[in-house]
Amino acid sequence: MNFKSLGHFTALILFIEALLMLPALILSFVFGETRATAAYLETLLIILVLGGVLWLLSRGEKADDFYEKEGLACAGISWIVLGLTGALPFFLSGEIPAFIDAFFETVSGFTTTGASILSEVESLDKSLLYWRSFTHWIGGMGVLVFLLALVPRGSRGSGFTLHILRAESPGPDVGKLVPQIGRTARILYLIYIVLTAIDVILLAFDMPLFDAFCIAFGTAGTGGFAVTNAGLGGYSGYVQWVTTLFMFLFGVNFSCYYLLLKKRPLSVLKDEELRFYFLTFLVSGLIIALWIHPAGGNAEETLRASFFQVASIMSTTGFATADFNLWPTLAKGILVFLTILGASAGSTGGGMKCIRLQLLFKDLRSNLKRMIRPGRISLVRSNGKAVSEGVLSNLRTYLAAYVLIALVSFLLLTLDGKDLTTTITAMLACFNNVGPGLSEVGPTGNFGSFSILSKLVLIFDMLAGRLEIFPIIALLSGTTWRHK
Amino acid sequence: MNFKSLGHFTALILFIEALLMLPALILSFVFGETRATAAYLETLLIILVLGGVLWLLSRGEKADDFYEKEGLACAGISWIVLGLTGALPFFLSGEIPAFIDAFFETVSGFTTTGASILSEVESLDKSLLYWRSFTHWIGGMGVLVFLLALVPRGSRGSGFTLHILRAESPGPDVGKLVPQIGRTARILYLIYIVLTAIDVILLAFDMPLFDAFCIAFGTAGTGGFAVTNAGLGGYSGYVQWVTTLFMFLFGVNFSCYYLLLKKRPLSVLKDEELRFYFLTFLVSGLIIALWIHPAGGNAEETLRASFFQVASIMSTTGFATADFNLWPTLAKGILVFLTILGASAGSTGGGMKCIRLQLLFKDLRSNLKRMIRPGRISLVRSNGKAVSEGVLSNLRTYLAAYVLIALVSFLLLTLDGKDLTTTITAMLACFNNVGPGLSEVGPTGNFGSFSILSKLVLIFDMLAGRLEIFPIIALLSGTTWRHK
Repeated sequence: MNFKSLGHFTALILFIEALLMLPALILSFVFGETRATAAYLETLLIILVLGGVLWLLSRGEKADDFYEKEGLACAGISWIVLGLTGALPFFLSGEIPAFIDAFFETVSGFTTTGASILSEVESLDKSLLYWRSFTHWIGGMGVLVFLLALVPRGSRGSGFTLHILRAESPGPDVGKLVPQIGRTARILYLIYIVLTAIDVILLAFDMPLFDAFCIAFGTAGTGGFAVTNAGLGGYSGYVQWVTTLFMFLFGVNFSCYYLLLKKRPLSVLKDEELRFYFLTFLVSGLIIALWIHPAGGNAEETLRASFFQVASIMSTTGFATADFNLWPTLAKGILVFLTILGASAGSTGGGMKCIRLQLLFKDLRSNLKRMIRPGRISLVRSNGKAVSEGVLSNLRTYLAAYVLIALVSFLLLTLDGKDLTTTITAMLACFNNVGPGLSEVGPTGNFGSFSILSKLVLIFDMLAGRLEIFPIIALLSGTTWRHK
Repeated sequence: MNFKSLGHFTALILFIEALLMLPALILSFVFGETRATAAYLETLLIILVLGGVLWLLSRGEKADDFYEKEGLACAGISWIVLGLTGALPFFLSGEIPAFIDAFFETVSGFTTTGASILSEVESLDKSLLYWRSFTHWIGGMGVLVFLLALVPRGSRGSGFTLHILRAESPGPDVGKLVPQIGRTARILYLIYIVLTAIDVILLAFDMPLFDAFCIAFGTAGTGGFAVTNAGLGGYSGYVQWVTTLFMFLFGVNFSCYYLLLKKRPLSVLKDEELRFYFLTFLVSGLIIALWIHPAGGNAEETLRASFFQVASIMSTTGFATADFNLWPTLAKGILVFLTILGASAGSTGGGMKCIRLQLLFKDLRSNLKRMIRPGRISLVRSNGKAVSEGVLSNLRTYLAAYVLIALVSFLLLTLDGKDLTTTITAMLACFNNVGPGLSEVGPTGNFGSFSILSKLVLIFDMLAGRLEIFPIIALLSGTTWRHK
């Protein structure tokens, strides 16, 4: 392990976090929230001192000595540090008295999970609500990708940029849009900013500007924190349809938008993952609508409730306009399935990702054919191209890790003695970065009553889900930390 | 597909089934159950006519033209045929009026699941109770393996015996005890018969001989059908401890007993799967005992209830002495985990098998190391020997198929609108051949109220679980049926 690079990198992440916290500090001034202002200033001091010390300690780092394990460890460590320091404003202002709760809430923010320990949010200072929602926006595209967008070309080895991008970006096979990774990161953030801005503008027609920003952050990052206790149920049908559209859009692979910019709409229409994502959205929405439609009810209201919830769970945002806890088992079953499925690779959404399920299915079919007729060659193809054995092998490892982590997390959570539906869906909602589950952690519930151990398990699950497992479990492996 | 071999093979299986049904016919005479006698005679007629026609149609088969796909298809088809024809006595006697229910009950028997559609069993004719329990015993070791034990050496190609053994025997890597497969099958059945006989003798000290035989069949096959409504809770503590021991023993890889016969106890003690199986049994039993122990309660009773249930679920037998539905979430969580884990490879138990979880974990660790330090070689070892890439690749395919089938089955079952815990655990209990789940399908419930579609899904799951997925999904693949 190249510890100096790790230190240097963590220092950079801390400085960026300080920068990203400035708008919240300014807002606390504007709203006259003195306790929050003090908390932000104290937090910034801590971050800058910590970052400064790391910066000094890591002088003379060898930037080229940066390989896979450094990429994995940097991603894992920096996300934990982001969670720990990002929690300080909530804790130091006293708005969230227990540090474990502030840590849970912040990791839930950065990982765009949206699971909350708060039973009501309206009493929170506005600048803290802003910071809470803004963590979604930062975490959605990724703070490491943000860093890559800032790094001048040629200033670091290519190992650095490539391994960082791989470790933080979702999906089984991270594609670069353009050969230079820095430029790829800038293009991604540009698309992200423009889409978010359009969402803010559309929302601002029918809600306060402050709410519009916060809800757009939650939508863009596919997070799910709201700023009122009624959540998205308290806004107009127009706002709900707009949010449905944008939740869906932020669950699409961003390379599709890049292809649109490059005027290649045909490649977008033929994209297998996009087709699967859209079809699943459509079919799930229609089936649920049929099942929950009340006799003599309003069709628009039913379709709105159904498609909103499907877009919300599938994109792993987690907003709710209805208490889907009360829906029929079929509807709940589909939502649990969509929780696991998740959005597309290369989007801001979580879950397993559509492409993974597609590839798992194709890989299974190909292996089955090989089992039935040994010696037969049966390639797995995606969008017409053969998928390499390396990608498939990683995919199978991912599935094994996913299942093992889910089983162990579930067993640890049963210690709390909550009912099985709560226990299972709390784990799935956090591990897939969705937010709400069912029963006690349903849309009207919260995660506040879990024990400290369970909160730590769920924090682990949220981080493992957002970083797609490997950067987090790499931290637990001795191989990562060995010197040579 | 070599259709003639498939027909010939199915005819053989039908003849063997007729042979195995004779004791039940005789019992129905002895007990004077005339309706059952008539049903058995009608069934035997149908079986023999069907078998005879198939035998005639498949004359001139090429026995050497028998490859992987023939092995898979023969295993899949013959188990479905066994279920369909084995259900006839229940249906024709009118004791189970709906054929789908009789089919469910019989597949549940042969696959050693033990999930029942009956709300009470004591009103069933005794000869039918005997047949119901005997299907567990036949299905436990496998009727195809039974066939192999009968086939004279050299009478069929080696492709036949090898591919059949592979398709029906549980575990990621089917080991032959001795070079000749026919002899391996005979040794396995000999161990099976001797262990069952000891169990019958020990049980007969404290229960009627009829019960002793039926309970021993359910224990040996790790099935779980009982002959009284009170199940195992109605017998003495002695009977429960004996059954705990034998459920555990029948979940052990039978090659361990072969090694004991060969006087190699050290190899048995060093067996990694046996150690894992035993440790999981011990730790789970102790934790559950601690959690369910009532203040001032009797320690022996608590330990007996806990270890009985752990042995029952882990060996995938499914007997119950307590309504574990009422136990704390931690205990239920452990039982759900053990449902998925299951027993050892090469035993009569179901589930994923201990060795698979161990190999998945080792494979994950090795792949993770390769991800952290590419180029590094990290072999997966089991009992000191390197596991081949073919076995690991099959294992990953198995996991993917397992997860996909579980997800799809779960979604189809939600159509019935039962609560989520019932829906999930019904699927897991059938897919892993355990029997009882939680909530409505807990130890005091049954599967009778599911819809026909759900019953068909669960029948598919039971067969896929018993045959370890591939022989059943191979039937759904066009590649299997293509002529050349």
